Amino acid sequence: MDIKIGVITASDRASAGIYEDISGVAIQDTMKDYLSSDFEIVYRCIPDEQAEIEKTLIELCDTQGCCLVVTTGGTGPALRDVTPEATENVCEKMMPGFGELMRQESLKFVPTAILSRQTAGIRGKSLIINLPGKPKSIRECLDAVFPAVPYCIDLIEGPFLECNEDVIKPFRPKAK
Amino acid sequence: MDIKIGVITASDRASAGIYEDISGVAIQDTMKDYLSSDFEIVYRCIPDEQAEIEKTLIELCDTQGCCLVVTTGGTGPALRDVTPEATENVCEKMMPGFGELMRQESLKFVPTAILSRQTAGIRGKSLIINLPGKPKSIRECLDAVFPAVPYCIDLIEGPFLECNEDVIKPFRPKAK
Amino acid sequence: MDIKIGVITASDRASAGIYEDISGVAIQDTMKDYLSSDFEIVYRCIPDEQAEIEKTLIELCDTQGCCLVVTTGGTGPALRDVTPEATENVCEKMMPGFGELMRQESLKFVPTAILSRQTAGIRGKSLIINLPGKPKSIRECLDAVFPAVPYCIDLIEGPFLECNEDVIKPFRPKAK
Repeated sequence: MDIKIGVITASDRASAGIYEDISGVAIQDTMKDYLSSDFEIVYRCIPDEQAEIEKTLIELCDTQGCCLVVTTGGTGPALRDVTPEATENVCEKMMPGFGELMRQESLKFVPTAILSRQTAGIRGKSLIINLPGKPKSIRECLDAVFPAVPYCIDLIEGPFLECNEDVIKPFRPKAK
Repeated sequence: MDIKIGVITASDRASAGIYEDISGVAIQDTMKDYLSSDFEIVYRCIPDEQAEIEKTLIELCDTQGCCLVVTTGGTGPALRDVTPEATENVCEKMMPGFGELMRQESLKFVPTAILSRQTAGIRGKSLIINLPGKPKSIRECLDAVFPAVPYCIDLIEGPFLECNEDVIKPFRPKAK
Repeated sequence: MDIKIGVITASDRASAGIYEDISGVAIQDTMKDYLSSDFEIVYRCIPDEQAEIEKTLIELCDTQGCCLVVTTGGTGPALRDVTPEATENVCEKMMPGFGELMRQESLKFVPTAILSRQTAGIRGKSLIINLPGKPKSIRECLDAVFPAVPYCIDLIEGPFLECNEDVIKPFRPKAK
């Protein structure tokens, strides 16, 4: 099964070319670090419009068949921050443990971690994870949750992800 | 007031007799360890069908009058995992602190703890708690949250649960 | 920009004059401790009626223009505890990190902290935070989350809050 990973940057300014999308690049670099399996990145940089984020999430999950879609941006309390709402609208199941652990991890560095509303959920055979917007927080959050990602994708009948185990150790419980 | 405790195993395979319901037994054994009050277990083993889980939760809360209903199974990300959705549909109030603490506790043992979507909530005078499916995790999770259960049941006007305090210490704050 | 802070005590007994509203006073005292900016308190003490809590939240956010509204009471599992539901109904965005951190903080003191369903959210340019009912827990919870509050209010275009930094240290990340 081919492995496709979606990366969506939700940012009015990055999508308008006002600044470079460092965060989207940071996610792609992290995936290359983590995964020893061959994979293809499907990348989109779009404005903070809820309808457009939802449409793009659906496209990457249903049409592109990404087993994992990672978003960056739009998780704060501001008016234009709507990525968690878009995610919740397109998911059949929410995975609250991802947001809890990412906030807990970020709290080790900044007290404003509680302002991040990031979540995760399942749409069909795709796992969607929201990450914060800052490149530094992106890596911290992914390091915290990624060990559970390959097994999650096994459970939703996605492809088998193999990792560079000196960089990140995926955990797959033994069958009971 | 008679004390009834509901135990629901949601499992396609256990309910079809393909394997023994070790998890349901583990919960019953734990309740016997914890409680010094006399109580009766009302046990059901059913497939992972959301409508059936909801119907069984309602029966155990409303008809049987269980003050506590504990479920096992169906909390993961897979297609047939729908216990948290069933729980949310039948509850008037959600209790997010239970899921948060159980995931945090399980994270001490396995990084895949974040994949568990278990929650808790109140229906009428019943507290419903989702536990994970694995017997080992069941005890870890119950040990973490049970100290708060007797007081919770006091607050929703259920029976007064007494515990074997050398096994588990219930906490009841003094009235202010 | 004038700074107004709303304080709502949801309590059947305090609003009926059966006992003094120590909790509402504790929040006001804490705000005076924390803030070096001039501010005005808008205080309401009302019964645990969901419709009335919602109406009061809306009044303090939309009519009074409070940048921050803090509630106390009504976050437990009992029938009359409906403050989190009222909060969720009037907010456009929920901020799950506040409840998570406050429960985690309270868990250091009492295992029944998981029974508190308190949350936070954004309505327009107002941040609403639920606190528990007990004066002692109020200060513990506020000490945990308040460092993130001034920056949150910056992000929703509220007034600039200045703090007594020997009492509480607000954190404002540098622009990226």
